[in-house]
Amino acid sequence: MEKITSRKNAYIRHLRMLAADAAYRREKGEYLCDGYKLLGEALSCGASVASVLWKEREQALPGLEDAAQYAAPADLFDFASPMKNSPGPLFAVRIRGCGKPGAMRNAIVLENVQDPGNVGTVLRTANAFGIDTVILTGDCADPYHPKTVRATMGAIFRQKIIRMELPYVKGLLDEMGLPLYGAALDPAAKDIRSLDLRHTAVAIGSEGRGLSLELLDVCRDKLLIPMQQESESLNAAVAAAVCMWEMSR
Amino acid sequence: MEKITSRKNAYIRHLRMLAADAAYRREKGEYLCDGYKLLGEALSCGASVASVLWKEREQALPGLEDAAQYAAPADLFDFASPMKNSPGPLFAVRIRGCGKPGAMRNAIVLENVQDPGNVGTVLRTANAFGIDTVILTGDCADPYHPKTVRATMGAIFRQKIIRMELPYVKGLLDEMGLPLYGAALDPAAKDIRSLDLRHTAVAIGSEGRGLSLELLDVCRDKLLIPMQQESESLNAAVAAAVCMWEMSR
Repeated sequence: MEKITSRKNAYIRHLRMLAADAAYRREKGEYLCDGYKLLGEALSCGASVASVLWKEREQALPGLEDAAQYAAPADLFDFASPMKNSPGPLFAVRIRGCGKPGAMRNAIVLENVQDPGNVGTVLRTANAFGIDTVILTGDCADPYHPKTVRATMGAIFRQKIIRMELPYVKGLLDEMGLPLYGAALDPAAKDIRSLDLRHTAVAIGSEGRGLSLELLDVCRDKLLIPMQQESESLNAAVAAAVCMWEMSR
Repeated sequence: MEKITSRKNAYIRHLRMLAADAAYRREKGEYLCDGYKLLGEALSCGASVASVLWKEREQALPGLEDAAQYAAPADLFDFASPMKNSPGPLFAVRIRGCGKPGAMRNAIVLENVQDPGNVGTVLRTANAFGIDTVILTGDCADPYHPKTVRATMGAIFRQKIIRMELPYVKGLLDEMGLPLYGAALDPAAKDIRSLDLRHTAVAIGSEGRGLSLELLDVCRDKLLIPMQQESESLNAAVAAAVCMWEMSR
């Protein structure tokens, strides 16, 4: 176990870059997680833990034999961490390569959902409700952003995630035999309660602007979550949750 | 319109205290909101706007005749605001007195839900799904915390909110004729899909610990949102959303 004492240490710099920079995460194929409980969950899910930075002292945890382990004094740890006052540890997990999926029971598609907390909550909910795949398209928050990871509460280690450009989404879903529905605030859309959403994909757009015309254009139908007239919309993660609940209900 | 130029101005101090201190909000009977769109929504909902601080210059908005209006240069505005780089305005809204409710169609009860974003999202969702009243008990985030208010996206002006100590909750719901169900991760709980939740109240606990034994003790039954075995729980706002969706479905 290496004890790190300098802010200029290359590993400290690596962790700070993983926290701050999506392109660096992609280049290195790693993302940053925080906390002892989450580390245990990563290991029990079979996630590939590349390295661990302990705050002050190591804690015993079986399964870490292949991970590089470091320790740092509290002030240096806090410098490396994107969270304030975390008891640690920080750890880096290898992003799973995502080959072409063989089959897909159902899917949720997020387009331009930019809040990392919302994307993380959708991943967590998808995992809880047995939604096979979360497809991120357009300008969504990075699923490996520290705030996204935190909001998934461990589902990041279990949930299948595909990032793809919009023109490819329709082709993939067609191949999987999944019709796509687009959640919309359009009163002419079909009431979600009237649809059989097993073996479908449902798309959720940004809170401000909804789904793009390009995406709506490849949907079989628009889908409406009925609401009181006075209220304008739902939080994106809540709208996705209601759709996923109906898909698995 | 008074132009404020000093950080020591009493109104600037008032706004900063409204942002920072729940006891001060209660004492003054006001809470802080941010943004031109939200101000318009407050006025159209008939919320009582006490005062407005414009960033640099006033913008025209009918209905503000009775509100005290101020303007401040950008740096002073930013000093007063709990948000970074807000275009403003900041405004203070009077907390509505909440008399004894005459009747209640249904209700969602939050116990010890401490995250302001989650409480705000529940208020927003309750309003969208026509849930009459949100009852906050135990150690919940203040519904008038700036982060809660922001997450409600205007529902704070429309949604009935009651804060009460746990021993009184059961009495109120009994009086309203609403049986109480408690969401729990207990496999012996009743599957939410098997219950008729119209004209009921459903209680949601903290993510970490769930509902207290005291609260579960006054529930007619425990209610379960079925999940995949591997996933531990849902985000509190998502669990509440699924319950409220089923209550209004």
